[in-house]
Amino acid sequence: MTGAYLAIDWGTTNRRAYLMDADGSVLGTSRDDRGVLAMRPGEYPAELAAIRTRLGDLPAIAAGMVGSTRGWREAPYRPAPTDLADLAAAALRIEEQRFAIVPGVSLLAGSDPATMRADVMRGEEVQVLGAVAAGLAPADALFCQPGTHNKWVRVERGRIVDFATAMTGELFALLRGHGILAGMLDGPVADGEAFRLGLARGRGATDLPVALFEVRAAVLLGTLPPPDAAAFASGILIGADVGTQVEGQAVHLLATGTLADLYAAAIADAGGTATPLDSHAAFAAGIHQIWTLTR
Amino acid sequence: MTGAYLAIDWGTTNRRAYLMDADGSVLGTSRDDRGVLAMRPGEYPAELAAIRTRLGDLPAIAAGMVGSTRGWREAPYRPAPTDLADLAAAALRIEEQRFAIVPGVSLLAGSDPATMRADVMRGEEVQVLGAVAAGLAPADALFCQPGTHNKWVRVERGRIVDFATAMTGELFALLRGHGILAGMLDGPVADGEAFRLGLARGRGATDLPVALFEVRAAVLLGTLPPPDAAAFASGILIGADVGTQVEGQAVHLLATGTLADLYAAAIADAGGTATPLDSHAAFAAGIHQIWTLTR
Repeated sequence: MTGAYLAIDWGTTNRRAYLMDADGSVLGTSRDDRGVLAMRPGEYPAELAAIRTRLGDLPAIAAGMVGSTRGWREAPYRPAPTDLADLAAAALRIEEQRFAIVPGVSLLAGSDPATMRADVMRGEEVQVLGAVAAGLAPADALFCQPGTHNKWVRVERGRIVDFATAMTGELFALLRGHGILAGMLDGPVADGEAFRLGLARGRGATDLPVALFEVRAAVLLGTLPPPDAAAFASGILIGADVGTQVEGQAVHLLATGTLADLYAAAIADAGGTATPLDSHAAFAAGIHQIWTLTR
Repeated sequence: MTGAYLAIDWGTTNRRAYLMDADGSVLGTSRDDRGVLAMRPGEYPAELAAIRTRLGDLPAIAAGMVGSTRGWREAPYRPAPTDLADLAAAALRIEEQRFAIVPGVSLLAGSDPATMRADVMRGEEVQVLGAVAAGLAPADALFCQPGTHNKWVRVERGRIVDFATAMTGELFALLRGHGILAGMLDGPVADGEAFRLGLARGRGATDLPVALFEVRAAVLLGTLPPPDAAAFASGILIGADVGTQVEGQAVHLLATGTLADLYAAAIADAGGTATPLDSHAAFAAGIHQIWTLTR
């Protein structure tokens, strides 16, 4: 396996390790829940050694929260606009471990404090730029990466030029787990009539905290069947999220499963078109480009 | 004390009992945290007896969550538009306890399922209509009742005609207690530069879940001092809330303390004018009208 290496998407709650061939093809993967939140400060070298025991004693490169202040060592953000070459040049090397960490990306848009937008990402940049590098998406594209913190990323000529993080998934989880809506949101969330009604309520809404209380009121008043409450609430949140970002354009959706279905429906509802992409293939393509550029 | 009675504002987490003279003046009050969430189903008669031991063995009337399905007994909602006479006529009597419960108010606005708004209140209606009855506010007015679930109530000719509940306070509490912003929002929340920047970011925003993540990003990137994060986040949430409801008009603010200051600042920021009202005096006036009408 001359030239083979390990690539790790090391996030907050999960990590996925790829055994990469020298040509960028994926020879094997390993996924577990040893994300950054599960780590104690000194554990990283032993964790990397464990991955090497599983996949091979090879040099390694990682992206994601492992490079945050809560991770192994901080790999300072690269400010947008940025591309794979910039990220590769700024990769943090931990030589004694034959290990490198890809930096995240930061955004500071605008100069007026009242309208300035700040944002950060760690890990998503590799998927997005990898999708472009692999030809899965064009070099000018809008990406959506649904999850706890949904990222909307705008790429122009292969560079990340703008992005926004929406706490859509986190808000749903907080409302389901705590507070006045807890106990009402345990039903299934799938694309259907209740979800679509939620999309219509959430799209363009400036009163999201009012719309969310309406879930409770509609159940109490009998206009919303209790099993539909979760789908309606999810529709409100996803409708608000998508409605702000999508105005009829094509969206490249780095997601699978139910979340991909929900966002595809919301994007279509907002007049856009959603193209699902394989986020693992995108990560592998992106990290391989960075790896090659750091050699 | 001929004609004296007890009036109880019996809410979710707290209750306040008033010893009322026959003419509506308040002779004494008692406040504790024995709200509905602290009650087991069979405890209400003994709880009422305890209040009578403290304030006098008198007939009693209550409003608030005590009349909900989680409370003592359900006093079904009266649909808006409604007024004090309507609420009095629909009061639920529990004769063996010399006790009455004021119904809440429900709203179903619109007929198109995609745009229909559902809302409910219990207890706030007595304050709002009481403020009008006592001459603290005109018979055509917009009221704001900040709290965990902030109520915006529109009164026309002394009747509640429309209202909206915003989960503003609850969202702040959820974000402070759980999730990615937890640990960042423990600083003070007061009217100041950070709060004002939050107001500007939140007002009219269709991307509230993005604005909230910006709190974290701005702290990480050093553009927001960590002690300012709570005030900035509060400003975003209150700015979004107020910005949706206020378009330059007068707002009658049933609140005291910091929350009244924050909402007054937000209302002024949205071009409105805030008139603070004494919510206890408003409740006493409203419940006395209802009490008199039920005699």
